Parts: sequence; C-alpha cells; structure tokens
Amino acid sequence: MIEIVNSGGVTSPMGFSAGGAHAGLKSEIGALDIGLLISDSDADVGATFTTNKIESPSVSVSRERLKRRVARGVVANSGCANCSVGVQGFKDAEELTALAANHAGVSPEELFVASTGVIGVELPMALIRQNIGNIKVNEEGGTEFAKSIMTTDSRHKERAVSFVHDEKVVTVGAAAKGVGMIHPNMATMLCFITTDASVEPEFLQNALTEAVNASFNMIDVDGDQSTNDTVLIFANGSSGTGAITSDSDGTDSFVEALNYICTELAKELARDGEGAQRLIEVTVDGAMTLGEARKASREIASSMLVKAMVHGKDPNWGRIVMALGKSGIELKEREVDIFISNIHVVHGGVAIPYYKDAVVSAMSGNVVNFQVSLNQGSESATAWGCDLTEEYVVFNSAYST
Amino acid sequence: MIEIVNSGGVTSPMGFSAGGAHAGLKSEIGALDIGLLISDSDADVGATFTTNKIESPSVSVSRERLKRRVARGVVANSGCANCSVGVQGFKDAEELTALAANHAGVSPEELFVASTGVIGVELPMALIRQNIGNIKVNEEGGTEFAKSIMTTDSRHKERAVSFVHDEKVVTVGAAAKGVGMIHPNMATMLCFITTDASVEPEFLQNALTEAVNASFNMIDVDGDQSTNDTVLIFANGSSGTGAITSDSDGTDSFVEALNYICTELAKELARDGEGAQRLIEVTVDGAMTLGEARKASREIASSMLVKAMVHGKDPNWGRIVMALGKSGIELKEREVDIFISNIHVVHGGVAIPYYKDAVVSAMSGNVVNFQVSLNQGSESATAWGCDLTEEYVVFNSAYST
Repeated sequence: MIEIVNSGGVTSPMGFSAGGAHAGLKSEIGALDIGLLISDSDADVGATFTTNKIESPSVSVSRERLKRRVARGVVANSGCANCSVGVQGFKDAEELTALAANHAGVSPEELFVASTGVIGVELPMALIRQNIGNIKVNEEGGTEFAKSIMTTDSRHKERAVSFVHDEKVVTVGAAAKGVGMIHPNMATMLCFITTDASVEPEFLQNALTEAVNASFNMIDVDGDQSTNDTVLIFANGSSGTGAITSDSDGTDSFVEALNYICTELAKELARDGEGAQRLIEVTVDGAMTLGEARKASREIASSMLVKAMVHGKDPNWGRIVMALGKSGIELKEREVDIFISNIHVVHGGVAIPYYKDAVVSAMSGNVVNFQVSLNQGSESATAWGCDLTEEYVVFNSAYST
Repeated sequence: MIEIVNSGGVTSPMGFSAGGAHAGLKSEIGALDIGLLISDSDADVGATFTTNKIESPSVSVSRERLKRRVARGVVANSGCANCSVGVQGFKDAEELTALAANHAGVSPEELFVASTGVIGVELPMALIRQNIGNIKVNEEGGTEFAKSIMTTDSRHKERAVSFVHDEKVVTVGAAAKGVGMIHPNMATMLCFITTDASVEPEFLQNALTEAVNASFNMIDVDGDQSTNDTVLIFANGSSGTGAITSDSDGTDSFVEALNYICTELAKELARDGEGAQRLIEVTVDGAMTLGEARKASREIASSMLVKAMVHGKDPNWGRIVMALGKSGIELKEREVDIFISNIHVVHGGVAIPYYKDAVVSAMSGNVVNFQVSLNQGSESATAWGCDLTEEYVVFNSAYST
C-alpha cells in the first residue's frame, strides 16, 4: 500500500540533492533556467526518449550515457532546446555536463542532460559557464529543481509517494514539466523520477517503460511531439532495503508507486496544456486488446473537434463516434455505448434520449469524462487531454503580428 | 492540353442535368439542402469512400451500388449525416434513392446517395417526401446542385475543364463541399465529378483513385475524418468520342483534366476551412519514395503548431522540423533544407541568417508556401492545409454556452 507524501518531489527519497539557478536563458530576471539533480551514490537508471526522427543532441548524449545503466544525476536547462544547431549542439551538451559535473564533484559521463526551449538557437554557453556555480544543490532543493525546468507551465509539477518494504520506508519522487508550447518554446515533456529503493536494473527499465506507456504516452495536448522528450528514473538504494525485482517482496508496491507518480504527473501535464481550462479523461473499455483500447482512447482525447466541444460544454457525441471510427480499431457499431460523465447517451450505436441540461452541467466541471464501451472484450485504457481554447491559438500565433 | 471553363460545374459536360431544392433539413428558409444529379444515359462510375470504421448508411448503400459500375446519378442531402441512427439509416437511405429515382424517372438502384450534416439524428423523411418533387433537374442546374450540398462552406465550389479528343470537345466538371465543421454538422468531404468522355471502367476507377490520393487525401483542416466522405465520378460518353483507356489517345489529357479538377477543389476546400484565413502549401522534395514525401508533407500541413504559426505570420521553422521528424520518415537531419515562400531559412539542418521582416512579409499573403528538401531521392509531394484561428475554436465550441 502506498502513501502519498504531500508536497514531495525529487529530493523526498533519501540520498538525493537538487537545486536550480538563473543563468540567463530566460529573459525574466531571476527565473530559474538551469537545474541539477544529484544522487549521493551510484544509481541504477532507466529512461525513455522521444521517438521524433529529429532529436536534440542533449537527447543523443543522454541516450549514449544510458548504456552505462549507472549514473549520478542529470543537468537540465529550460529556455533553449539545443536542437537544429549542427555539431555545436553535441559540443555544448558535452560541455554542459562537464561544467555541471565539475560543480557537483562527479564525472561528466555520470550525468545525463536534458534541454527544453526554442529550436534552432545555440545554448548560451558563456552565460552557463558564468552561472552554473550558483546552483546550491541540497536535500531541500526538489522544488527549486522542478521550477528550473518549467517553460510555459503555469505551475511547477512534483509528486512523491512512500511505501514500506523490508520494514523500511521507501520513497519515489518526481518532477516534470509540461506539454504546452508558446513561442519561441517547443513543447517538451520532461520527467525526472528518483527513488531510494534498490531496484534490479532490467526490472527498473521495464517498470518505467510500462508506467510511461500507461501515462505520459496517453496524454495529448496538440498531437505534436517534441524533439527533446525525456523521462529518467534513478534508483540509488539509499533506503537500505533488499533489491526489488520483477517478482520480489515490494514489487507490487513499487509498481503501484511508480504508476501513481507517472499517471498523476501526466494528468497534471494535460490539465496544464496551453490555454486549457478542463481535463478530458477518455476511457475505452470492452476492447479485444490493450493496444486497441489505448489507440481508440488516445484518438478521441486528441481530436480537435472533441477538444473544442469540451471547451463549449457541448454534448456533441457524434464527434466521439467519428474519432472512434477514425482510430481504425475493430469494432461493431451496433455494440457501442457512450457515457458522458456517467450519463448514458448512446446505446447499441444509437442515440438514446437524455436530459441535455444534465449533460451540459456534467461537462462544466474541471474534469470531463467520456466512457466508450465497445462490448467486445475485456481490455480497457484511459487517455487524457485538454480542451481547445481561443487562448491556445492566441498563445501559439502571437509573435510577429 | 486542357482548357479551363470559367464558372463551369457538373452540368458543363454534355448529357448531365442537376438541381436542388429546400426540403427543410436546414433551418434557414429557402436554403438548398437536397440535390439531384442525373445523366441522360448510363454512365460508368468510379468512387472512393471514407475509411472511417463507422460510416453512414448512405455510404454503405452507395458502396453496395458501386458493384454495378454503371449508374444514372446521385441524390445528396445536407443538414443530416444519416449516421449513428441504427437500421433506420439504411431504410432511409434506400427510400431517399427511391423517391429521387421516381422523380427523375430512373430506377432506385441506378442512384447513389450521399449525406452530410449532424450525426445521430434521423433523416426527416416526411419533409423529404413532401419536397423532393420541387427539384427542377436541368442542364443549367450545376450551381444549384453545388449549393445544395454546402454545410459550413462559405461559398459553393465547382470547376470544369475541357480538352479535345477525337476532334471533339470533351469536358470534365465537378461540385464539391468542404472539410469544415460547425456544430451541429460533421466535417464531410463530398465531391461529384461528371464527364462526357467515354472511359474504360477499370481505368476510370484507377485514374480517380490516383487523383484523389494526390489531392483530397493531401488536405487537412483539423485531422478529423468524417463518417460520410464520398467522391464519385460519372462518365457517360455523350461527347461521342472513342473510349479513353490507360494507354489510348486522350489518356494524358483526361488524367490532366481530372487531376486539375481534384487538386483545384482540394485547395479550395483547405482554403475554406473553418475560420481559415490562409492556405498553407507544403512541398516535400528529394524524398526516397512518393509515400514518404506524402507522409511528411501531410504531417507538416496538419500540425497544430505549424497552423498556428501561419496564423501569426511567425517564421518559427523549428515547428516544421518537429513535424517533419514526427512523421517518422527516413531522413538525414544534416541534409535538410527549408524554404518559407522561397526564402531559404535552414541549410543542412542548421539555421541560416535571413531577414526576418522579409519572411514575415512573405507569410502575410493568402498562400503560405513551405518547401522542405530532404536531398535524399527524387520523389516529391505537396499537401495543403489552413491556418488555425480563434474563429475555428469559437465555431466549434459555440453551442451550449
């Protein structure tokens, strides 16, 4: 059983320190734009990266360092994606880790690197050289680190949960930044997870991949995918418990904790999409396969027409039918049921009478739930998105004019 | 060589009559909402339909009748998609063709049927029975027919071209409606093409499929796909020429005419997307395969961030890079060149200096062109989209609130 630690983050687990500083990548005076997360001792590492064919050299360098499977932490910057800048991007990513490693007293190859911000502009290395020493890495620095990776996020995002394993308290913490974008920044999803559990390396990677597939890969703000997306998990074993493996004591609790962290942060990212006012939660159940349930729920949550109808509190379920059909999954139209925030609006593929005011009222809350029952099998999945608002368009077009 | 017939449409070719009437599916008094297109004699038919897994019974009935490969015409209605209404939808689609056939003096199975409008509402058959007799089918009725299929289109859309074959004038005409949607209507793309050429049936279908793949399948307004999309071509041979086959005299002119009609109407649909102010034209060249060129150009033209940046005249080419990479095609980042309306902004994957005001100015026209050169092979493709505006959001959310 897991226990949610209020106001925790990456430094909630034992043996992790973090901090942030203003290096000048963001123009706002004092805004944190460079962060450092360090484990006191060697940590096992798991990671997932963007699948965009064009990726930031920061991602390429991290991808290469993942081969060691052991690391001491990560240096992250906001305000510049370090992408589409040629070979200079590789040099800068390497130097960034060297500067951070020197400041933290570790080796450069023991550090990962993540960047988020504008594409096509080189990292301002002179500013970083001058200011990276201002990061005060400490055990209370989780929130500062979470703030240093923000771009257009309206608030910083962190979570922590604990559970008991081998009669000791084990903690999982995380900081993330969002899937919104405003000129000149690109959408980038970053999440850094820490735990003082000792976790068998292969299981650590598999558990992370599973958790990411059910959470960060199930959210959509605008269908676009960044060149810089990165999720990292560090397990340093500081809790002193025995190693958690795929079938040991503590496995279930660890998986539950990791899934909770990833799902909560994913929903928080969707909720904080640019201009968003409502979280859309789409559950597709009764599918023949998990893959089909995920595909259909994602397709519905990412439909521009569905997003616009949530903005307008418009129970226009024809758009859900359209997005469901567009997903291409196998279905029998005459078996499909649809519920809008628990109100049954379609049965057997056909409209049923409902009290429209009740549905409009149900769509007025902070969270709008769509349930699509395929009545074909026993698999289900949930995807999250946000409504499409005029503010999104204004944010993303307001630049030259 | 083809000649463009100004202000032509489906009745420009010989032997076709058309018309429209107000049956009451649209609430606006007198708005045309039911149309009929009839060939004087048997016509060979080609067709493409939506690939959405949920389709209107109007599509299902037309799909079935395509098996005959010969027909006399089509009845179309706007204001109601005849979708998600259970078995009643099949009965109504059948009755609609029976009523229209009776009025036109043909057999029901000789007519196709197409519907566009709100999903989940049954066709108002009583109104249709009462008013279908008001359609005055005649050789000047092409424009009336084009108007009868409009939903949120801001203007009706028709085209015609002619060419000489066997020393006779052959004409191809068409009417289409757009890919925009406003509550309570669904996006539906309809296009009806007529020609007085005699065309070998298998070649007719292949030529249509090719033309649709390079035109209507290359446009995007919001990534959503209707349950009702239908393209039909009728070739009745009234020009009296010899049959056009895949390698006869006249083949090239016919293909050129068909492609011109489909491409012009596709661009017109993109340009008239809901709330759109600018047409986006994305050409990807230097690709290894045509499929990859099409995939990449479509991905860029349909990116919400690219659409928003065009709205803001913002030369934020990082978004083009992101969408290109997201498409998943094979590419070498260091070989990529990007041009914005002929201004070179990226060379070898890296930003090159450009005069920003010139690019902003180039992005202020009615058409904004992006060229992405992969420098890998010799295939190229063009896709079209429209900018994303606040009006789109207002249109598509303005209902209950």
